[in-house]
Amino acid sequence: MEGTNMIARTTFSAEPGTHEVSLSRIFDAPRELVFGALTDAEAVPQWWGPRALITAVDRLEAKHAGGWRIVQHDAEGNEYAFRGVFHEVSAPERIIRTFEWEGMPGHVALETFAFEAIGEQTRLTWSSVFQTVQDRDGYLMAGAESGATESWERLAEHLASTGR
Amino acid sequence: MEGTNMIARTTFSAEPGTHEVSLSRIFDAPRELVFGALTDAEAVPQWWGPRALITAVDRLEAKHAGGWRIVQHDAEGNEYAFRGVFHEVSAPERIIRTFEWEGMPGHVALETFAFEAIGEQTRLTWSSVFQTVQDRDGYLMAGAESGATESWERLAEHLASTGR
Repeated sequence: MEGTNMIARTTFSAEPGTHEVSLSRIFDAPRELVFGALTDAEAVPQWWGPRALITAVDRLEAKHAGGWRIVQHDAEGNEYAFRGVFHEVSAPERIIRTFEWEGMPGHVALETFAFEAIGEQTRLTWSSVFQTVQDRDGYLMAGAESGATESWERLAEHLASTGR
Repeated sequence: MEGTNMIARTTFSAEPGTHEVSLSRIFDAPRELVFGALTDAEAVPQWWGPRALITAVDRLEAKHAGGWRIVQHDAEGNEYAFRGVFHEVSAPERIIRTFEWEGMPGHVALETFAFEAIGEQTRLTWSSVFQTVQDRDGYLMAGAESGATESWERLAEHLASTGR
């Protein structure tokens, strides 16, 4: 990873008794590139989700009232699908969208991604609010922190390889 | 309001320090009618918002990844516009959508409407979660409880007149 600083700078936050989870990290790439990694259907499978899964983009309409759907497969052939709709896509500053794991229909979260330029770097802050505190706690119990941190580690690697 | 029971049965809830506001009320109409009052572009202007404002539906695509936009005018000509996207529209049980007042762009809430049949009546429960507790508190300070209660009082009247 020559030329990049791979020290983990990820801050995960989940206050007890609230509806929210948030994650913040500085990436060694300008925010247009970080923004594009979240909205480009060819980029997303390179980093979204755990390394152990194969990720495919079924739909990614990055605009107001556009839909998105991502499908993952493990080595045993199990499928995990996620979907949502974009409320706002304001390049390169902000994305607001809904998120649902199709295995638990009706349980939906609202995700906000904020991209802040820090010189040639970008601070990405992701916040997700759930319909209930119980849903938020269930998400944490399912391994949200390690999953999200792994995704963003992969995103950092993807950006480093793209930027060469 | 012959044949209807107009006793207020609205329960408003907003726990301190959380992201959520919720409202629940039993309406004297079957849930297909209550559901339709929220998804029919001709019905919404009859009850949505305060009585003092004129309400018009600009867009109401009640389906996954459909957009909605509602515009209100007061007697002085001021305009108040609201918009969002539908994540789920499952008639006659559930609607999940985003909500934003265009006067505060980027501040978005996730709304869930649950329709429960109780004989010929319907319990409608609305829950809204905001991106931050501060946004939720700002919404309360702007008169959310009286505004929402007035809307649902109008909805009850609309349903009573429709059911005749």
